[in-house]
Amino acid sequence: MLSKNKIRFISSLKTKKARDEENLYVIEGDKLVREFLNAGIRFKILAAKAEFLDSLPPDKLKLADDAESVSFEELRQMSSLKTPHNALAVLPMNKPSLNYDEIFRKRIVALDCIQDPGNLGTIIRAAAWFGINTIVCSPDSVDMFNPKVIQSTMGAILHVDVHYAELIYFLKIAKEKEVPVYGTFLEGKPLKNITRRENGVILFGNESKGISADLKQYITEKIFIPAGGRSKPGIDSLNVGMAAAVTLYEFSAGSSH
Amino acid sequence: MLSKNKIRFISSLKTKKARDEENLYVIEGDKLVREFLNAGIRFKILAAKAEFLDSLPPDKLKLADDAESVSFEELRQMSSLKTPHNALAVLPMNKPSLNYDEIFRKRIVALDCIQDPGNLGTIIRAAAWFGINTIVCSPDSVDMFNPKVIQSTMGAILHVDVHYAELIYFLKIAKEKEVPVYGTFLEGKPLKNITRRENGVILFGNESKGISADLKQYITEKIFIPAGGRSKPGIDSLNVGMAAAVTLYEFSAGSSH
Repeated sequence: MLSKNKIRFISSLKTKKARDEENLYVIEGDKLVREFLNAGIRFKILAAKAEFLDSLPPDKLKLADDAESVSFEELRQMSSLKTPHNALAVLPMNKPSLNYDEIFRKRIVALDCIQDPGNLGTIIRAAAWFGINTIVCSPDSVDMFNPKVIQSTMGAILHVDVHYAELIYFLKIAKEKEVPVYGTFLEGKPLKNITRRENGVILFGNESKGISADLKQYITEKIFIPAGGRSKPGIDSLNVGMAAAVTLYEFSAGSSH
Repeated sequence: MLSKNKIRFISSLKTKKARDEENLYVIEGDKLVREFLNAGIRFKILAAKAEFLDSLPPDKLKLADDAESVSFEELRQMSSLKTPHNALAVLPMNKPSLNYDEIFRKRIVALDCIQDPGNLGTIIRAAAWFGINTIVCSPDSVDMFNPKVIQSTMGAILHVDVHYAELIYFLKIAKEKEVPVYGTFLEGKPLKNITRRENGVILFGNESKGISADLKQYITEKIFIPAGGRSKPGIDSLNVGMAAAVTLYEFSAGSSH
């Protein structure tokens, strides 16, 4: 049984402030918890129904410094979900450092002020699917450790390093190193006609404002995702997550030919 | 000023039951309300801040049977959003009938038990972008008039007819008419290698269970969206909205060549 204090502590991690102070975050759900354990990730606290704990092999259970069986009601108090799952874990944030020499040799995604947790989560998921393992977010983007982000990545967070950095400096370095920077614009070239290098930064902008004015000068190639059929007044954009999925798909599929 | 009764009535439309009984639904937001008015859609009630009503040309204002200026607090009581916008409208559901002869001549999207309102909304938005104007949902899919669906379509709902029908009967008719039915499966053919007919049904399944077993027999072509790079244990799928965006993009882009 978890103490009231611990329940209150875990519950407090719903806010970014508490997460940053403690350097801890929460994952929820049987499947996600199992995936993290299978990847050998250590937990500070594993709080789960007794049946869930019993179902874990001893070597996995040992990955939790503190494993406690809890009731549904206790899970409900700590959960960020409408209906809590059977297991929840608290673990240290993994904040990898940016190695510019290494990351500019690969394709990476940069996100300028993405606000919606679901969008960041699905972009992380799409990046993992299409073989991209580095994302750089502007500091004003939504927190990657936000429970909604973590849940919507469906475990893809294990395969993608998410960094926060001032994009203007980041893109300046890309420019100095002659790394291509791709960005989506209505006046861009159709995605299928873009020359895709094996490395480069693919930049996506804010849900309503798009890419910031001060970043535009660093874009070396403007991309457009063509709308099918007739022109449609009023449909001025794809959702940024969808635009990211389509772009990463085309870059990934294009280069495998 | 809106009466308390009307505020309660509009607020009640957050539930599917009330919407179905009244055959009414709600849209919110300055931009969305303006787009609907520009498309000539009639409102039963338009409730907005006085400044918003004043900003409308008289011929647009006439499209509302009942236009009332309301306070922020009144908007907050009726709104499904965390922070209400300046305008909200109540309007009759548009339920177009399915004309099989017509729709099978085009590309259409079928959705089997999509549960997440954000997913349905963004799929509607992607369909509109890629020139598809018919979606058929299984009856157990999320309600298209759910406020979260409506908001996430960003007005694309004006360009796409969304139907609800038993997919097993629907796909049976497709089969009789020799209309191709495409579906995404892990064992499918890479999307780029699919022969894309100008007509056909593109079917997407439930977020966790995929396409129902009883529908699989109707699929004439299995599609797979290749994962880039190394194999990644644990990343077992793309989000359905993203899979839909990529598939519709490739069908749309492929056929314009």
